[in-house]
Amino acid sequence: MKIAFLIYDRFTALDIIGPYEVLHGLPDVELQFVAKQAGPVMVDSGAFALVAPYSFADMSRADVLVVPGSLATMEAAADRELTEWVRQIHAHTRWTTSVCSGALILGEAGLLQGLQATTHWMTLPFLERLGAEARPHERIVHQGKIITAAGVSAGIDMALYLVGQIAGPERAEAIQLQIEYDPQPPFQAGHTSKARPDVQALAQRELMRAALTARESWALMRLLGRSFVSNLKNRRLSFKIEEAAQS
Amino acid sequence: MKIAFLIYDRFTALDIIGPYEVLHGLPDVELQFVAKQAGPVMVDSGAFALVAPYSFADMSRADVLVVPGSLATMEAAADRELTEWVRQIHAHTRWTTSVCSGALILGEAGLLQGLQATTHWMTLPFLERLGAEARPHERIVHQGKIITAAGVSAGIDMALYLVGQIAGPERAEAIQLQIEYDPQPPFQAGHTSKARPDVQALAQRELMRAALTARESWALMRLLGRSFVSNLKNRRLSFKIEEAAQS
Repeated sequence: MKIAFLIYDRFTALDIIGPYEVLHGLPDVELQFVAKQAGPVMVDSGAFALVAPYSFADMSRADVLVVPGSLATMEAAADRELTEWVRQIHAHTRWTTSVCSGALILGEAGLLQGLQATTHWMTLPFLERLGAEARPHERIVHQGKIITAAGVSAGIDMALYLVGQIAGPERAEAIQLQIEYDPQPPFQAGHTSKARPDVQALAQRELMRAALTARESWALMRLLGRSFVSNLKNRRLSFKIEEAAQS
Repeated sequence: MKIAFLIYDRFTALDIIGPYEVLHGLPDVELQFVAKQAGPVMVDSGAFALVAPYSFADMSRADVLVVPGSLATMEAAADRELTEWVRQIHAHTRWTTSVCSGALILGEAGLLQGLQATTHWMTLPFLERLGAEARPHERIVHQGKIITAAGVSAGIDMALYLVGQIAGPERAEAIQLQIEYDPQPPFQAGHTSKARPDVQALAQRELMRAALTARESWALMRLLGRSFVSNLKNRRLSFKIEEAAQS
């Protein structure tokens, strides 16, 4: 079973690493990180890049697709090459999934038409425009072969649910134990129905600020050319992918 | 405030990405991913590399240190250069933290002597040998400026607790809402006290198998030389870090 983890510029790391760490526990899976071009892809904070070994051109089929969100999902969702690839992969998947604002990418690819779906609480209003019915009180929404999850950390719950569907509850429980997923949040503000109004206002302001900061550092990186530039230090990291010599 | 995220060969991605995604929400922080050498560091599954912009030599001080676990923590913990760097950073931190088997690295660095601590359930027996008192039923153990967390996903709870300590509960709650951390695991097997015996046996077997597989692909990569080699495809990814031209 081939599992494709899509990444794109300024993706949110936990959106994809949560499901990856869970699905990693399935037996006989190939875990394939894929981006428009193979190579390093910067996360939203700019703190590090993740190196995708596969490009869109390398991969035309996958059994499971995981689409993460980001602080710049709108731009990813407006990228025709990206949504076209998602549509093409979806045509043959057993499961197509999204985490957080990744649902907007599925929506722009035309996959949520007439379906119930969920996404990060900040992006819920966009679901309706994409023809989907928002389910703001559900952490995971399963419709046919599509599963959408709520914000960021919800990808862990979604992936455990998916393992249950693919391999049964015993395997899902073993993976839950492997990653010791026995959550004990020290606060109780993880959903808009639980967080106080001042906390909600602060969270909203901070997300807006982070999205703007990400946009600015991105603009700077673009200005500096196509090479990958760390925005943290005055260093340039360059990458090259070549065919390895046959042994 | 400078936060150092240590990564090393075959680290477990969620161990470090969980705390990173939470601490990312603190205002005025520098998030610095650091490895023995700057550049790509492979995760335990071999599915991708994460690019660290900083080397040990680049960083001699940090306010917060986060040490992840891995399927090969014993080897990291036996690396004198690594434990010496951890000890040196710890000397000036406000907080020194570990997730999962990362506690064994703190232990080998001599930081857990006489302290209570926790770690992944599989590595709990090693804590005593390192002079610490294991707390198998606690998800987070806070002792002075050291906080240890249980396996993999426990880093999210630990980091939220740490944000509460650093910036107060309102900020921690806002971050919890930003990452929509309102966990709803579809199964209840996340702790050894909750998982059935057959599930525990399966989880243990699978972790042993994964550790062996990681060791084998690592041996292969070593054999192929110091360059970073993707073990997924017959491709070679090479990396170069150079000073960027001053603008």
